[in-house]
Amino acid sequence: MTRIFIPGITPPTEQKPAWWFAFVGNKLLIRDRVASPSGEATPLEYRTDNQIPHLINLAEINLTSVRTQFLGTIDNHPCYCAELPKDTVPPEGMIFRGLRELYGILEEDFFALSGRAFQIMEWDRTHQYCGHCATATTQLSGDRAKRCPNCGLVNYPRLSPAIIVLISRGEELLLARANRFPQALYSVLAGFVEPGESLEETVIREVKEEVGILVKNIRYFGSQSWPFPNSLMIGFTADYADGEIVIEEKEIADAAWFKKDNLPQIPPKLSIARKLIDAFVSS
Amino acid sequence: MTRIFIPGITPPTEQKPAWWFAFVGNKLLIRDRVASPSGEATPLEYRTDNQIPHLINLAEINLTSVRTQFLGTIDNHPCYCAELPKDTVPPEGMIFRGLRELYGILEEDFFALSGRAFQIMEWDRTHQYCGHCATATTQLSGDRAKRCPNCGLVNYPRLSPAIIVLISRGEELLLARANRFPQALYSVLAGFVEPGESLEETVIREVKEEVGILVKNIRYFGSQSWPFPNSLMIGFTADYADGEIVIEEKEIADAAWFKKDNLPQIPPKLSIARKLIDAFVSS
Repeated sequence: MTRIFIPGITPPTEQKPAWWFAFVGNKLLIRDRVASPSGEATPLEYRTDNQIPHLINLAEINLTSVRTQFLGTIDNHPCYCAELPKDTVPPEGMIFRGLRELYGILEEDFFALSGRAFQIMEWDRTHQYCGHCATATTQLSGDRAKRCPNCGLVNYPRLSPAIIVLISRGEELLLARANRFPQALYSVLAGFVEPGESLEETVIREVKEEVGILVKNIRYFGSQSWPFPNSLMIGFTADYADGEIVIEEKEIADAAWFKKDNLPQIPPKLSIARKLIDAFVSS
Repeated sequence: MTRIFIPGITPPTEQKPAWWFAFVGNKLLIRDRVASPSGEATPLEYRTDNQIPHLINLAEINLTSVRTQFLGTIDNHPCYCAELPKDTVPPEGMIFRGLRELYGILEEDFFALSGRAFQIMEWDRTHQYCGHCATATTQLSGDRAKRCPNCGLVNYPRLSPAIIVLISRGEELLLARANRFPQALYSVLAGFVEPGESLEETVIREVKEEVGILVKNIRYFGSQSWPFPNSLMIGFTADYADGEIVIEEKEIADAAWFKKDNLPQIPPKLSIARKLIDAFVSS
């Protein structure tokens, strides 16, 4: 089913049934269909038996929100994100599920929209006051921005660009286990871009910092939004150039060269980490 | 002259002569050598006649700062950014120059460091209070982060990833004049990444929004830090796919297809916009 999402800033003036991406913390309120074979979990939305979406008002199911933002339209229906009070009890037939758990469970376009909704809700929540002078901010009309009426500081939704890089040496690739990873999971290296760096400089610095080696022939692979909480993952491949593996123990538990046909546990499908590894294995 | 910069978080405990990237607003305090033939403008730093750097303390030249951040070391000398009071009078032999004007004038590594310094200073200035609950933040030790002691919100320096894209149709390329551009300047299209998008999705959306056409074969070109105030420019090339040029008048004054040998005024050397154009012209 193809839905067309068109981003928007200015909400409709009339109150209409709408799609709601409603969160408590990072948990999205969805219809409890996650366990169904179709896996067609959707955010706050009802379907009749003949599968025609029946859109709702948040008020109709007796939920109140701390704050809401208009996101745009899905097939001409308005679409909002909402921050719900912490003690919200899900309405019948609905549950809260962590956004991360829903990766690969929600339909792809809904997952992307959920990520967008979460980031805009978080931007709204964390920019109520000016970070420079603590004055209450006001939202600009016609722009996704908040402005301080005292000092003029303007803030747009925040994104954190990060590189992720697969390093190869002939038929081997370097995988590492971060301290924060569960159990036996190994993945490619990743790290946030720092002010003043190009992406290629970030790749060189992160690899050197985390495993102590030098890389060359840095090539772009692809990119992916990663809303946990607001990363933009930018993937690269690189060739081993020099040095021995020396791990930075603060972040990395283990790092080693692995042969294509003898890989440890790696990240699940759909992540750009896995796409990098799959592309190398099949090359 | 090759200087080695190593980023750092924890300043040395002893007061030592240091490199200072000191700003009033977006103006950097530099030695007044910009007009000299060598163009060797440097931030707050003195040289003796034999060109050996003579490093200084900010206090030695009677300057006080609103706040400072440690950046790391340049050739083992500590390196700081500083926000100076608005009414600061530059010491003798020094002037304030806008960071943007210094692009191509400061030595390349110093320009990159100035951009890093400016962004970290701005992060410091604009994260004095928690954006969620207006509590005064505290700086974490060992990490470039500020934390709210009340609600726990943590903020790292902000970067704004943006795409920049050269669109070609055979031997022609699309250039546009933004309303905010000076006079007759034309450039390739650019725009900020929105939450939930991959870079490729941003390219498609921005091109469609700004000039109404569809593109295909999106290919990575390179990236560049652009500290005005905190952008990370990510360059792409793309092929024209479909549609007629329809400009978005709010942002764009004019857009047209230009032949390689008949270009309008384009951005100066060193910018990634110019690199994209030069690469296409010489292809």
